[in-house]
Amino acid sequence: MEYIGQSDLRQRIGEWVERPRIQAWIVAIIMINAVTLGLETSPLVMQHAGLLVLTVERVILAIFVVELGLKLYAFGPRFFREPWNVFDFIIVSIALIPASGPFAILRALRILRVLRLLTKIRRLREITESLLKAIPSIGWIAALLLLVFYVFAVMGTKLFGASFDEDFGHLGRAMYSLFQVMTLESWSQEIARPIMAEYPFAWIYFITFILVTAFTVLNLFIGIIVSTMQERHYELEDAKRAETEARAHAEREEMLLLLRELRDRVERIERVHYGRREGG
Amino acid sequence: MEYIGQSDLRQRIGEWVERPRIQAWIVAIIMINAVTLGLETSPLVMQHAGLLVLTVERVILAIFVVELGLKLYAFGPRFFREPWNVFDFIIVSIALIPASGPFAILRALRILRVLRLLTKIRRLREITESLLKAIPSIGWIAALLLLVFYVFAVMGTKLFGASFDEDFGHLGRAMYSLFQVMTLESWSQEIARPIMAEYPFAWIYFITFILVTAFTVLNLFIGIIVSTMQERHYELEDAKRAETEARAHAEREEMLLLLRELRDRVERIERVHYGRREGG
Amino acid sequence: MEYIGQSDLRQRIGEWVERPRIQAWIVAIIMINAVTLGLETSPLVMQHAGLLVLTVERVILAIFVVELGLKLYAFGPRFFREPWNVFDFIIVSIALIPASGPFAILRALRILRVLRLLTKIRRLREITESLLKAIPSIGWIAALLLLVFYVFAVMGTKLFGASFDEDFGHLGRAMYSLFQVMTLESWSQEIARPIMAEYPFAWIYFITFILVTAFTVLNLFIGIIVSTMQERHYELEDAKRAETEARAHAEREEMLLLLRELRDRVERIERVHYGRREGG
Amino acid sequence: MEYIGQSDLRQRIGEWVERPRIQAWIVAIIMINAVTLGLETSPLVMQHAGLLVLTVERVILAIFVVELGLKLYAFGPRFFREPWNVFDFIIVSIALIPASGPFAILRALRILRVLRLLTKIRRLREITESLLKAIPSIGWIAALLLLVFYVFAVMGTKLFGASFDEDFGHLGRAMYSLFQVMTLESWSQEIARPIMAEYPFAWIYFITFILVTAFTVLNLFIGIIVSTMQERHYELEDAKRAETEARAHAEREEMLLLLRELRDRVERIERVHYGRREGG
Repeated sequence: MEYIGQSDLRQRIGEWVERPRIQAWIVAIIMINAVTLGLETSPLVMQHAGLLVLTVERVILAIFVVELGLKLYAFGPRFFREPWNVFDFIIVSIALIPASGPFAILRALRILRVLRLLTKIRRLREITESLLKAIPSIGWIAALLLLVFYVFAVMGTKLFGASFDEDFGHLGRAMYSLFQVMTLESWSQEIARPIMAEYPFAWIYFITFILVTAFTVLNLFIGIIVSTMQERHYELEDAKRAETEARAHAEREEMLLLLRELRDRVERIERVHYGRREGG
Repeated sequence: MEYIGQSDLRQRIGEWVERPRIQAWIVAIIMINAVTLGLETSPLVMQHAGLLVLTVERVILAIFVVELGLKLYAFGPRFFREPWNVFDFIIVSIALIPASGPFAILRALRILRVLRLLTKIRRLREITESLLKAIPSIGWIAALLLLVFYVFAVMGTKLFGASFDEDFGHLGRAMYSLFQVMTLESWSQEIARPIMAEYPFAWIYFITFILVTAFTVLNLFIGIIVSTMQERHYELEDAKRAETEARAHAEREEMLLLLRELRDRVERIERVHYGRREGG
Repeated sequence: MEYIGQSDLRQRIGEWVERPRIQAWIVAIIMINAVTLGLETSPLVMQHAGLLVLTVERVILAIFVVELGLKLYAFGPRFFREPWNVFDFIIVSIALIPASGPFAILRALRILRVLRLLTKIRRLREITESLLKAIPSIGWIAALLLLVFYVFAVMGTKLFGASFDEDFGHLGRAMYSLFQVMTLESWSQEIARPIMAEYPFAWIYFITFILVTAFTVLNLFIGIIVSTMQERHYELEDAKRAETEARAHAEREEMLLLLRELRDRVERIERVHYGRREGG
Repeated sequence: MEYIGQSDLRQRIGEWVERPRIQAWIVAIIMINAVTLGLETSPLVMQHAGLLVLTVERVILAIFVVELGLKLYAFGPRFFREPWNVFDFIIVSIALIPASGPFAILRALRILRVLRLLTKIRRLREITESLLKAIPSIGWIAALLLLVFYVFAVMGTKLFGASFDEDFGHLGRAMYSLFQVMTLESWSQEIARPIMAEYPFAWIYFITFILVTAFTVLNLFIGIIVSTMQERHYELEDAKRAETEARAHAEREEMLLLLRELRDRVERIERVHYGRREGG
């Protein structure tokens, strides 16, 4: 009996915490949290109302912890099967780690809590999911792009590293500089031209890199367009065409049935006729 | 009687003001206004013919006021139901506010009057309407983008605000800098590299932001392409396919009718035959 | 007789000058001209072989003049009906104007002669024609973009012209600066940020301009994509679908003919039957 | 007999070297090579473990040489018919040239060996092939773009070369600067504005170039999109439509057969009837 009571309690808690009204309250609290985290960046506000802001944030954090705790109790291990729950869990957990010493950066990551809106607002969650769905289709092109980056980074470090420490001093810097070149930001005035002053043929390196990455990124881009369009549009179109075709098929089927029936009847008539004739 | 006369007058004024010839005159006047507002920017012209330019502008403004006044009288409250009328009304009203003291900026907004061409020239109005129609379809992606901006702005202010006041001093500056980063303008040389000199891991922040916004903007962009193409092209194609299918359906219907008729007739013949046979 | 002889001569010259072999020679000569015009830019080459280069160019120019002269003689006024001929005529004429004094710039325009390749090589001419064909479809969006440019240029000149003479000193400079902002080149670091230092709200002006032009250009771009795709692809697809449908229609027509024939025959049989029956 | 034995050996070697397990080992070795070539760029690593890294690289190079040698022995001249084999052969050969004196740059090209992954991993090879397949379709537009570049480079060298040696000093510099302008990198602040200070009408040159190349590149881009989409999507769609149509056609064929059979039978019945009637 106690087991049933407990499972009953769990179910009721689970239902309660997922009620639209409760979820709407959570959305409102996340938005208030967004505002207080924004206010925290203002020294003026923190000087005059810092205690209030921090208290509100602690209360909000407590609410989040309680919400997730209830869900964890209600759903047990099933809770972690839903990726969005894992996302919520990690984001809220960050806030519980004491953000001092080497973890001071975690204080800045608290704003990630606002991303819980992605979990809570259905349309935002759907859009995020559709964005993430496009990733696998670009996986191999991304791998190719990474390979190109690595090859050019090693080459750049070997060729220009000695003289241009800032841009090509080691592999990491070369990768960063190449990313900048790929975005076309100051690639010529600040990176290529100074290097070309020392190595006149460096333009081959940079123009090849730009053409190759532009071409690869363009294809990556086209891949996403094509897959997105197929997903969104062609499903609709295929459904429409299938429907049209199904109707046409049904009509043709009916015609065929009628025709076969006619054939059979005419055959019978014929048999009667021939029969008669022969019999006549 | 007076009421009817008044309503009659209203109607006649409404018809008169919307005559193609009158509207063509208004378009010509808007264009002259565009020229005079352009001339106003030249100190040389204003020095020699400033009075003339300003007089012409006052006359044009008077014509606009009269035009809108007549329309308001003619259509009454209905006037404001048409969004383009509201647009015209606001744009002309701006010119009537005395542009002095704190409102000096309104003098610069007078050029917005030239945008009345959007209202008056049918093709421009249609294009503008089709551009505006694309907005709802991108609403949620824009919301997502704003959320990303806000999260990164708060994070950036907390992380880099203290040392880089110019770029990340407060939330507004951070938002502006992030917009600049999103357009890829000098993002590395002027923003990321100086910050990386102090915080070596800042590249994670910037590259993540660029990838996330580029990816989101790309999808926003695809959303617009898909919705625009569906609108413009697929309607046409669907119409064409529906027409083809309707013809095929009509032909099949005729065949079915003929077949059913045949079946009935053959059945009758059969009944006669069997009848005979049986009767025979 | 003389008239016929002359017209005969004209026709023979026209045919001769348009022979593939002659046209291939002209293409070769244009390419040699491209090389000599390139060599002309090198002071070293001009110092050692300047006379040779210039002589070759004069000979080539003479050949071009003779070619066009023959064509003019052969085709008469019809020559100018073909836009590509007009293009050739203007480009060759430029070289005949003495390029000295105020016309010194014409010397630099001589390289435009190389563009005669567009006229002579069929594939290049087709591509250029297809590019030009896309222009009308973007006409109104281009007009809208120009309107936006003009409105922002006047506004910018009024607002920032006094303090930022370099960028917004007069309408022309403002238009140029706005074009630069539209291409996103240094828009923030070199243009917007210095202005924002004086007018803190200038970001509204720049970000609005970027969003509006980006959005308009995007739509212009989509317009071209859609119209190009319709042109290239959908014609093919429509043809394919029309063919499929035509075959299906022909088959259905045949079925209808057969059905009507059957109906008529069965009716006749029926009439015979009923006739008999009644007669029986 | 010896000949057969040799050919037998060749075949067995060929089969052995192309076994999935052996190829997987080669992939692993390429990846280790990628790591060691990366480590080579670090002075710290080379100082402490330079001998190890270089030894590993020599062993790997030996493995590659043996692999290609076996393949060459096994397949003979057929080996060079496969472009990917030629690619492998060249890349491995580069490493065998003594990289000293004027060939010091070849040392940097050794990283190209990592591109052998493109040969070995099927998905990467397919993507690269599909990227390369798009090139012919853009050939003529690329030719057009090159023509535009050449014309503007000659013009720019003639017009601005004397005063702006850095950017337009000779044809090569002009081509490079125009490439930079096409990528929109610092085109205005660093290139166009300084030139406009001396030649006020230089904006015509730059804005024309940007519009022409942007327009051409846009069309090149659309060409790739269209051809890629046709390739990937429309094949599928055409197949689907062809299948639907084939089924409809088969059904209509069956109906036609039935109808013709019916017609024949009814005709026979008729003949009997008429025959009877006449005979009656």
